[in-house]
Parts: sequence; C-alpha cells; structure tokens
Amino acid sequence: MIIILNSEISDSQLEDLINHVEKAGMQTHLSKGTFRTIVGLIGDESKVSGDQLRTFPGVEDVVPVLPPYKLASLEAHPQPSIVNVAGVAVGGSNLAMIAGPCSVETEERMHSIARSIKAAGANILRGGAYKPRTSPYSFQGLGPEGLEFLRDAGREVGLPTVTEITDVRNIDITAEHADVLQVGARNMQNFVLLRELGRIKRPILLKRGMSATIEDLLMSAEYVLSQGNPDVILCERGIKGFDTITRNVYDVAAVPAVKTLSHLPIIVDPSHATGKPDLIPQCAYAGIAAGPDAEHIEVHD
Amino acid sequence: MIIILNSEISDSQLEDLINHVEKAGMQTHLSKGTFRTIVGLIGDESKVSGDQLRTFPGVEDVVPVLPPYKLASLEAHPQPSIVNVAGVAVGGSNLAMIAGPCSVETEERMHSIARSIKAAGANILRGGAYKPRTSPYSFQGLGPEGLEFLRDAGREVGLPTVTEITDVRNIDITAEHADVLQVGARNMQNFVLLRELGRIKRPILLKRGMSATIEDLLMSAEYVLSQGNPDVILCERGIKGFDTITRNVYDVAAVPAVKTLSHLPIIVDPSHATGKPDLIPQCAYAGIAAGPDAEHIEVHD
Amino acid sequence: MIIILNSEISDSQLEDLINHVEKAGMQTHLSKGTFRTIVGLIGDESKVSGDQLRTFPGVEDVVPVLPPYKLASLEAHPQPSIVNVAGVAVGGSNLAMIAGPCSVETEERMHSIARSIKAAGANILRGGAYKPRTSPYSFQGLGPEGLEFLRDAGREVGLPTVTEITDVRNIDITAEHADVLQVGARNMQNFVLLRELGRIKRPILLKRGMSATIEDLLMSAEYVLSQGNPDVILCERGIKGFDTITRNVYDVAAVPAVKTLSHLPIIVDPSHATGKPDLIPQCAYAGIAAGPDAEHIEVHD
Amino acid sequence: MIIILNSEISDSQLEDLINHVEKAGMQTHLSKGTFRTIVGLIGDESKVSGDQLRTFPGVEDVVPVLPPYKLASLEAHPQPSIVNVAGVAVGGSNLAMIAGPCSVETEERMHSIARSIKAAGANILRGGAYKPRTSPYSFQGLGPEGLEFLRDAGREVGLPTVTEITDVRNIDITAEHADVLQVGARNMQNFVLLRELGRIKRPILLKRGMSATIEDLLMSAEYVLSQGNPDVILCERGIKGFDTITRNVYDVAAVPAVKTLSHLPIIVDPSHATGKPDLIPQCAYAGIAAGPDAEHIEVHD
Repeated sequence: MIIILNSEISDSQLEDLINHVEKAGMQTHLSKGTFRTIVGLIGDESKVSGDQLRTFPGVEDVVPVLPPYKLASLEAHPQPSIVNVAGVAVGGSNLAMIAGPCSVETEERMHSIARSIKAAGANILRGGAYKPRTSPYSFQGLGPEGLEFLRDAGREVGLPTVTEITDVRNIDITAEHADVLQVGARNMQNFVLLRELGRIKRPILLKRGMSATIEDLLMSAEYVLSQGNPDVILCERGIKGFDTITRNVYDVAAVPAVKTLSHLPIIVDPSHATGKPDLIPQCAYAGIAAGPDAEHIEVHD
Repeated sequence: MIIILNSEISDSQLEDLINHVEKAGMQTHLSKGTFRTIVGLIGDESKVSGDQLRTFPGVEDVVPVLPPYKLASLEAHPQPSIVNVAGVAVGGSNLAMIAGPCSVETEERMHSIARSIKAAGANILRGGAYKPRTSPYSFQGLGPEGLEFLRDAGREVGLPTVTEITDVRNIDITAEHADVLQVGARNMQNFVLLRELGRIKRPILLKRGMSATIEDLLMSAEYVLSQGNPDVILCERGIKGFDTITRNVYDVAAVPAVKTLSHLPIIVDPSHATGKPDLIPQCAYAGIAAGPDAEHIEVHD
Repeated sequence: MIIILNSEISDSQLEDLINHVEKAGMQTHLSKGTFRTIVGLIGDESKVSGDQLRTFPGVEDVVPVLPPYKLASLEAHPQPSIVNVAGVAVGGSNLAMIAGPCSVETEERMHSIARSIKAAGANILRGGAYKPRTSPYSFQGLGPEGLEFLRDAGREVGLPTVTEITDVRNIDITAEHADVLQVGARNMQNFVLLRELGRIKRPILLKRGMSATIEDLLMSAEYVLSQGNPDVILCERGIKGFDTITRNVYDVAAVPAVKTLSHLPIIVDPSHATGKPDLIPQCAYAGIAAGPDAEHIEVHD
Repeated sequence: MIIILNSEISDSQLEDLINHVEKAGMQTHLSKGTFRTIVGLIGDESKVSGDQLRTFPGVEDVVPVLPPYKLASLEAHPQPSIVNVAGVAVGGSNLAMIAGPCSVETEERMHSIARSIKAAGANILRGGAYKPRTSPYSFQGLGPEGLEFLRDAGREVGLPTVTEITDVRNIDITAEHADVLQVGARNMQNFVLLRELGRIKRPILLKRGMSATIEDLLMSAEYVLSQGNPDVILCERGIKGFDTITRNVYDVAAVPAVKTLSHLPIIVDPSHATGKPDLIPQCAYAGIAAGPDAEHIEVHD
C-alpha cells in the first residue's frame, strides 16, 4: 500500500500516521519527491484499512499495491482451475455449453427442452425454480417442484444441472437436486448467502452484479473460497449502461481481464446481457471469441 | 400498455398478437399512423408481460403506460405517508436527522456517540451490528452483542434506533432490538429478505442500490408493501458512476423525482454517496435543500 | 409519436394540446384507457418537438414511434451500404482491416509500419497528424508534415489512408492527403465539423462518443448524410463505464444493434476500447465475431 | 509518479525501465515490499507518459502523484479566482445568477425575457444564437442576428451576456457581441476551439461533458488557461447515467470536489441536468446549497 501525503502535512501529523501503521505491524518507507512525499507500507496489507488511512489529516490518497483477494488470485494459484460439474469440466482447455429455459414451467416442457438442448450439443442444463423477479406480482418460480422437474429432465438426458439459489434456507434442498448452484447478479453481494455457499460441496456459478467491477466480482468469489469451497465459476452477464437499446452492456473484455488476474473459470451469458433475441447470435459468437470457459444461453421452445 | 408494430408485420402475425392480448383479458385499440401501427391495450396491464410481447414477430417496441408498482404509487395514496419511528415522524412536513457510527464497535463508544448526536440535535440513532463488507477478511460486525449496545445507547439518550439487516434468519432478533430495520444498497434486490420484512411490524429503511433506477427502488418497496408492511422509508445514497473522485454519484434529483411518483418518505445519505469527509458538509446541505424527509449522516468520535 | 396524458388533465388543457399539434400539421387520435388517455399523432413527426410537448400541462410522457434519423435508417435504404475507400470496400460481405500507429511520428517509422501492416494483411493504413489530446502539454501531432508522411507511406505500399480531422479549417488539406477523414469520439457531436464533412467527397469514419447512445451516433451520421455525403462508416470504440480495469467498456453488441437499424457500415476498435495491450487480442477476436465490416487496430513498432 | 512492478519482472527489464525514466530527466527511488517492488519517480512528471510506461514489460500499474493540470490547480493559485463579467463578479464570496432562454427566438421575446429576469434578480443574461442540436433537422439558431438581439436586450436592462460558441470561425463576431463565451458539454473536449478561446480577452464558461471526470474538466480548462486567458468559469450540468427518469445525473458533489482541487469558479445548471421542469426548483435549491459561485437557469416566457 502507498500513502500519498499532501504538501501541507505537519511533522506531528506524519508521525501520528507512521505510528498508526507501524503499530498495525507494517514497516514504512518514506520517499520525498519534488512536490509530494509518499509512504510505502511493507508487510501484510490486510492489517490496515485504506479507507481509514484516507481519513488521517494530511493524507491525499491511498493506493493499494496488492489486490484485496487472495485465494482467487493468480498468485495463489497460477494454473487455471478446472471445476468438475458432475463429470463436465469447466475451465482449462474445455468449452462447456450451458442451456435451458429461464424458469422451469412444467414437467413436460422441461423434458422437451432438455432433449432439444442435448441434441444441439449443450452439456449442462439450466432452469430456474426460485426466480428473483423485480415485481412481487410476477411468477416467482415453482419452488421445490421445479427443482424436481429440472433434476429429472437432467437425468433423463444425462446432463448435469444448474439452478439459482436466492435464499439461505433453501441451500440444502437445492444442493440435493442440482449439480451447480447459481448466484444471480442481484445477489452477487449477498454476503450471507455467499458465506453459506462456501460451506457446501457443490460448485457455485457466480454472476457479476450490474454495477460490480471485476475486483468486486473476485471479492465475492473470495467469500465462497474463504469458507472452503474451491469451486467457483464466474459469469459475465452484462453491466449497467446508459443506452436503453440493450438491457445491459455486454462486457466481453471482462473475460480476458479476469484471466490476467484469477485462476477461476469465467463464462459468458449473452442472453441476459442483451435482452434482445435478434442480437443474441452475434453476441454469442463474440462471447466465445473472447475466450471464456463456457457459454450460457437461455432457450425457449 | 402500447405496442408499436413494425411496418412489415403480416396480417396473421397481427391477429396472433391481438388474440394473445385479448385472451389475457385486455381490450385492444388499433391506431394506424403514416409509417407505423400502434396497438393500445385497455385494462389491467399486469395481466400481460411487456418482455413477452416484445418477442412476438412484428413487434418493434412495447411502452408501458402505467407504472409497474401500485401500492407505492401516488395514485394509490395521494397524500405523503408519514412513518412513525417510535414516536419520531418521518414524512410529511418533518425533517428527521439520523446519525451514528458505521459499525457498533464497543459499548462505551456507542454510548458516547449517542450522547453526542443527541446533543447535536439528531432524533434517530444508527449503528451496524451486521456489516455487509466487500472483503470476507474485514470485520463483519459484533452481531447480537452489537444489537444490545445499540439498543441500550438509544434507550439511555431516548432515541429510536435503526440498524442493518442482512440475513432473513436474523429478522426476529433484530426487530426485538431496533426500531427500524435497514436494507442496504447491496440487498435492495434481495427479494427473499424484502418479502420477509413485509411481514413484520417495524418500519423498513430501504437504500437505493448502486445501479437501481427510481422505478427499481419503488418496485423493491412494493415487495415490502405487498406483504402488509406499510412503513417503508426510501433512501438515496449514491449511484454508480465513472468518476473515481467520489465513491458514488450523489443523485439529489432522486428526491423530487420520487415525490412526483410515490407517497413514501425519502431520505438522503451524503456520507455513503461521496465517501469523502471533506465533501460531506456541502453535500449534506445540498441534500436537505432537495426536500427529503430526513438526512442520514455517519459520525465517528 | 404518442402522448401519454396524466389522469388530471383538464378538458381545456387537452384542447390546447390538440390545437397545438394540429396547427403543426398532424392529425391526432385519442385512445382512452382505464387509467390513462393517450394521443397518437399521425403525420410527419419532425413537425413537433417531443421536448416541447413534455412541457404542456397534463402531459406525462411523449414516446417517439419513428427514429429521429431518416437517411441513416434501414427504411430509407434497406440494403447495406458499401463505402468505397479508394478501391477497398467497407460494407457488404467484406471485412476490411485498418491498422497503423496512433500518431505519425517520423517519416521513416511511418513507412516501416506501413510495410509491416501491409505484410500482415491490413488493407487500410491509419495514422494521426492532428491529435486531440486531453493535455495541452502533450504532443499534438505533426500537422501538415504528418499528412504527407502518411500519404507517402500509403502510396509506397499501395494502401488507402485514414486520418483524424479535428478542425474545420483543416478539411481541405486533410482531404487532399487522406482517403478517409476520421471524426474522433470527442468530436462525435461537433456538429459544425460534421456539417462541413457532409459537403466533401471523402468517406467519413465516425467514432462513437463515450457517452453516445446508438441513436446519438446515427443522428451524428445523419448530419453528414443530410449535407450530401453518403459515405459514412460508423465505429464502436468503447463507452464510458465504472470499472477502471479497462479504459472504456467495449460494447460489441453495438455491432448487431446498428445492423438492425441502419444500412451504414460499422467497424470495431478494440485498441481504444480496452487501452490494455494484453486484452486486445481476445477483444479483437470478439469484435470480429460480432459481425462488423472492418476492424481497426493500433500498432506500434 | 509511482510505478508498481509485477513480481515477475526480470533484472534487465527493470534496468531498461529505469534507464528510460532517468534519460527523461527524472530520478528514481526503489522500494521493495514483501510482494511488490515500487519505483518512485522524483522530478517533473510531465516528462514521462504514464500510458507509455504501462506498456513496459513487468509494469503492473502507474499511479500519478500530481494532477496533470497545473494552472488550474489550487497549488498554482491557492486563492479562489474571481472572474469579472463586465462588472459582475463570479467567484469569491459572490453568488451570481445567470438566466435566459435556451435559444434567442425573436427580438421582442428576448427583450421581454431580459426584463423579467432582471426584475427577478438575475445579473447575467444568457441566450443561444448558435445551437448544437442532435438533429440536423432542428432549428440551429438565428446566428449573427441572434447575437444582436441578445446584445441589445442585455444593454437595455443593463446585464452582461453569455452565449454559446460552437465554431472557431465565429469567435470574433461572438466576442464582439457577448461578454462571456460558453463552451457546451458536447464541445468540452473540442481542443481546437478551447485553444483559440485561450487567445481572446473574454471569460469562458466551460460546461462539463456528459462523460467527463472532474479531472477531464480541469484539463479542458487548462487548454484555455495555457494560452493566456485566465478567465474560465466551470459548470456542472449533469453527467450520463442509467436512469431515464432525468435527462442526466445532476452531480452536485462536483461543486465541493472542484473547490478542493482548483481556484476556478464553478456554477451549477439544474435545467440541463434534469431536463424536467417539475424537478428544477428543488434541484436549483440543492445546487445553491452545494456552494457554487453562480447558478444558471433556463427560462421561458
């Protein structure tokens, strides 16, 4: 961590600052420039809070040097992680294809879609039983019955399944029925849910929040990893933008950006990113070309 | 709701569309312009889904005419709502002042801050016992002990209290200790939590998510209202922006904008919006001038 | 255009509104819903201003039905346009490759890069002689000498050239030396410049502004087209976002989105969009996969 | 400037980097942390380019320590600047009020509005003669005749005038008629225009671009200042956001933020920021409370 001092800091303010940092167990290293003095902190950065340092008088800015995530970083794990989804590898040199309907609607429909996507070459089946909907008046999913329809449809065609989890109280039942538990964009910073998901033995598909930076996404992954679950798959699904022509902005550069920082697999979801059926094919090709570990497509019959 | 057709829609496509809408119980009204035909839908808009109508061939756009929230709307409740926070009115012609530390840290500190803010004129005390932190390695709050310290400090100085709720499993204990339960920006679309909060008898302070539109915020309030809890206080606390000079963009126009749409009280939080101590005084004045029902300030000793 | 009235509009206010619209030469068509009345306008929408209609008492919203651009629209020109860049086709089923340095620096370097990119398969050479730099203290380009170096390097290897235009007073000299004149993102709404470029006989490469919607981009193209120059090539080069991990957000969905609205060719520029050398290869592949008419890459030796 | 090295930099790569920086005339100062080495640069930062340093192998990040603007900075000029607008002070402890119509439409109307705003207490009159409109088919302003009407209306009521400049070729005629020349948001990075405005003897009102950071705004001011014109007034008028409920996001925190960085006066413009007549009063109050040097309001008769 580097602390940039403003030119008006007094000697006693500087002394206070250095005492604070050294009491936290870090060494300091002063470097006087022509117009500014900077203080380099040497040691474990997690011992001090940048936000707190910024409130010291005479501090102009605080620049972190190390990323705040550890287990998710490439430094902790230089080789790409491969997540085993009931026999289907996500990560490494593989390209998985996840497909299925937005919601599980009926048993028959779920089986019919499962057969179609299997025939089309997909190797993981998705479907929502608990739906986070912006309106309380919209269909909120079939619940436990939906989980059964999804599991049975997956078994019939021999595909592992992924479904969304929105409530800590449903983790057990969901983990019994599905092979991957998905955390949606709106729950990406539901840290209570993330922590509990770190304690189960199921891979977690973590979708990027609409206003989440890549660092925010990796910090949310860190919540799961830090509790002992090593199997996190990240997902780019569009971020908030100013143009209403697409529902979100499909940030394909997130894929190579994550690859320079983390060993975790990352997948793309052009369906939710664009929200417009006629743009999805080209956006799906673009997503694949960016180099992800899987693509996630919503299909309807 | 208005459906705008593109110029190439066929007669049979138009017929399908009209059949679909009329089967849902709405009447239709065709209006042929020079270049486009539009279909006005008459009746209860909640019976059809705009997103689904957009997937019909020949449909160019779907424009909602009514807002998707009902109980939160001014039409449902033309007079401003006043939420009674253990004797302190939030809403109407009052201006409440909510203050307190980010986290409850020690019993002594909590009491000392409570006395200071009471002396300074605040009438509601805040403090966090469960903290949603971006890092799993950061202090996550004192939990139940923090709730007790907050309650006791409030009692000592005679101020009602507000604290954040992050976990459905903690609703009961939190409602026993605090007068208002706060939903943070990161949980604004945690619909599971919102629905449960709609079933308790405590006012809910609902903070706007960083990428939430005003409509999104009102829809989240609708979740609480629709379950029977009428006491929702909205909070503008900064939205995501591109300039790193402030932590978020403090959107003061949200205050009068909400007032044109909803009867619910709205408060401003310049502390979280800017994240920079030296900008908070001017931003606090600006927030008050925008016409909210309360201001929320974080204080440290 | 559709005018949505609020429920409290008085009869005389409605009459005023209808008089205003009809005096402007449009017919009106009233449709009373259960909660709202809407007024459809029939005729040439350009005769009234939506912004002005919104200021009438009793008007809740105004929804345009037709896009505000005409010459740029697919309706005016249903087939994709092909722009002839001194023998190289941009548009249709072709994929052009534009490459070259950010700035023209020396004659020797320009020739050396031109030979390299020609050998690598590019078919249009780029280089900046007038550079719009955020700092007045940065190198602002070689000016006329840079134009000569670029022209000569292009001639030597047999490639047409593209260079940026920033000043209406330099249009003549730039058009004498280069085959395509580029309008940068920061000048996308420099309407004075656009109008003048509509009067020359050179294709214009129009880069999307950092906060421009697709509609804004097409409206800027319309400025050029409306003055008689039919040869506009659009360019997606990244829009403003909240994550500092890339310089801008590379909006590849803009490519298929433009194709659904306009006949104009569109190209992608992953170099400016990401600003990070190690992300450019994957972003370049993603850009191509989105289906543009050319790709634009900055190269250095 | 601080260069953060990644852990894999080789000795020869580090040597190359240091040679490059020292050849540019700066001294270096190495600081080895536990996981990262950082290089502090001592001397004139303008001699090296951060963007270029980022392309060196082994460089992870480059952090500027000094702002890139000089003349606009508080360090160059610790006291607030006061701009004299034909006798009206903008800056210091004054609060000016700028009002007038969007466009100058007729001579009579201009005089009538001038009398009204004078009576209401405004002390600077605005009106547009050259209008930057997104549509080429919209009214583009009266041009020279509009300048005359504005000047005459200002003279009649004894108010100085401000009008927008969009074309370098109109600077002379505009400076002859108006007391302040305004650069609109869309031209904030029209550096050709800014440089020419730095050579005249008229104050410049520089509006913040819709995707401009505060640093971008100050850099654009620096263009004017660096050419010898010290009289720049900044203006916050709304930035691009994701919620369509207001035209832009009114960033009132920009006012105190600018005051911590620059001596230049800053004003607020709630009319363009919100674009909604019914939100302007509360937003105008909020703007004033943020502590600007003037407020700018559009008025219609």
